[in-house]
Amino acid sequence: MAADKVKRAERMVALTQVLMAKPNVLIPLTTLAERFGTAKSTISEDLLSVRESLRLSYQGRLETLPGAAGGVRYVPEISEREAGLVLHELALKLSSPERIVAGAFLYMTDLLFDPAVLRPLGLIFAGAFRQHKPDAIVTVETKGIPLALVTAEALGLPMVVVRHGNKVTEGSSVSINYLSGSSGRIQTMSLSRRALDPGTKVLLIDDFMKAGSTARALINLMAEFEATVVGIGVLMETALTREPKLVEDYLALLRLEEFDPVSGITVVRPVPSQVEGQ
Amino acid sequence: MAADKVKRAERMVALTQVLMAKPNVLIPLTTLAERFGTAKSTISEDLLSVRESLRLSYQGRLETLPGAAGGVRYVPEISEREAGLVLHELALKLSSPERIVAGAFLYMTDLLFDPAVLRPLGLIFAGAFRQHKPDAIVTVETKGIPLALVTAEALGLPMVVVRHGNKVTEGSSVSINYLSGSSGRIQTMSLSRRALDPGTKVLLIDDFMKAGSTARALINLMAEFEATVVGIGVLMETALTREPKLVEDYLALLRLEEFDPVSGITVVRPVPSQVEGQ
Repeated sequence: MAADKVKRAERMVALTQVLMAKPNVLIPLTTLAERFGTAKSTISEDLLSVRESLRLSYQGRLETLPGAAGGVRYVPEISEREAGLVLHELALKLSSPERIVAGAFLYMTDLLFDPAVLRPLGLIFAGAFRQHKPDAIVTVETKGIPLALVTAEALGLPMVVVRHGNKVTEGSSVSINYLSGSSGRIQTMSLSRRALDPGTKVLLIDDFMKAGSTARALINLMAEFEATVVGIGVLMETALTREPKLVEDYLALLRLEEFDPVSGITVVRPVPSQVEGQ
Repeated sequence: MAADKVKRAERMVALTQVLMAKPNVLIPLTTLAERFGTAKSTISEDLLSVRESLRLSYQGRLETLPGAAGGVRYVPEISEREAGLVLHELALKLSSPERIVAGAFLYMTDLLFDPAVLRPLGLIFAGAFRQHKPDAIVTVETKGIPLALVTAEALGLPMVVVRHGNKVTEGSSVSINYLSGSSGRIQTMSLSRRALDPGTKVLLIDDFMKAGSTARALINLMAEFEATVVGIGVLMETALTREPKLVEDYLALLRLEEFDPVSGITVVRPVPSQVEGQ
């Protein structure tokens, strides 16, 4: 009996490893049964224990799909408590006076391109928007791409990147012009025709929202593709513009509340609803 | 005794979950001992079993660092066999006639932006270049960004993105001009001064290499930052240019061997050394 127990423990650890190494990938029970040389019923029993353990460790959950095309997949998640800590820490980092650079910009590129910073942010966006069942994550180049990718990864979805200007080299494309709030100039964005099927439900992800002109333009572009925007998520919005935003109904994780390059004061805070949980 | 065994099994599963949910993050043994309410020696013993199990399941390995600043981290890896299968499957997908689009381009953006496709590619690059101990992954916008990010994630390193043109808004920047092989025109690329410290060892990652003019320009730009290029990895190179490549010593995972838009024939093959293992 002791040997059986040990064997089961080893199998459960290995099972956990196989599932967690491929987040959001559906693995048929038959594949697992073959791999571990046991009956499907034994695997099902093991999965119950792994599921319970995941519930207690707050590292995500197992999703089981019944039927012939069914199986089990590991869905990564972040706990409300950890999400709050992550955003609090990120807000503190962004509030550092050293981040104000020549030209009075807030330097945040290093954080936007750091996988260790990005990973939990992708999980937070995934948790907030999973219920709206998007089919794809859409962003516009360049700084929003890593954020969109980790969100896509957390949800097990493809990412679509809209290009600035008319650089699309992939067959016919759709372009729109819009007035950029930050530059005050007419800009163009475009997307290859084959990048999105009609009827796709998309989640828009970007790093920063000022007046919302980019988000507004993305919404208009999505309409050209007959895609439905089921959510908009941005890492940071600014509270420092007077005009009302051009989009409603978006989720910002952080808010820039003060920014004074002369005195060197930056105040970034987590948006409260995020810390308290939605 | 049975109860003890069960408790240990549960702890090992939870330990596996906590480690795998944060790849490349060093977790002190004290933290784990506190979390599971056991002695550090017990955690050490459990880790030996988890390590052995990982070795058998080919899902990566545990790295233990001794000392006060030490701890344990999960390092994701891909087996040689799985890497071979992934590249074989990707080569097949890219060889499909439907991927030849107007203007005689090979459409690969959907694959380059799909987390499920990218994740194993990041692990393959990580496995190939880990021994060269890079400090950062460098790429140039736009299509190479997701590939560079998954490689950075697999190695637990930050990513640095060089911009086209002179769009850097983050303080002073360094720009270089170069003759682009694909457009035949003079192009500019630039990077913020604060993006890289002198002496940084960088791994260059990009999606495609034709003549190598972009890679050559990146190498020159890195020299301006006193950074050392310890490796160059590209997803695909073309065998269809006659000129010798402008860089040597790079790793290409796939090779475009035939491309005839008129007859609709594309042949992409894994570069042999990759499939056989290096």
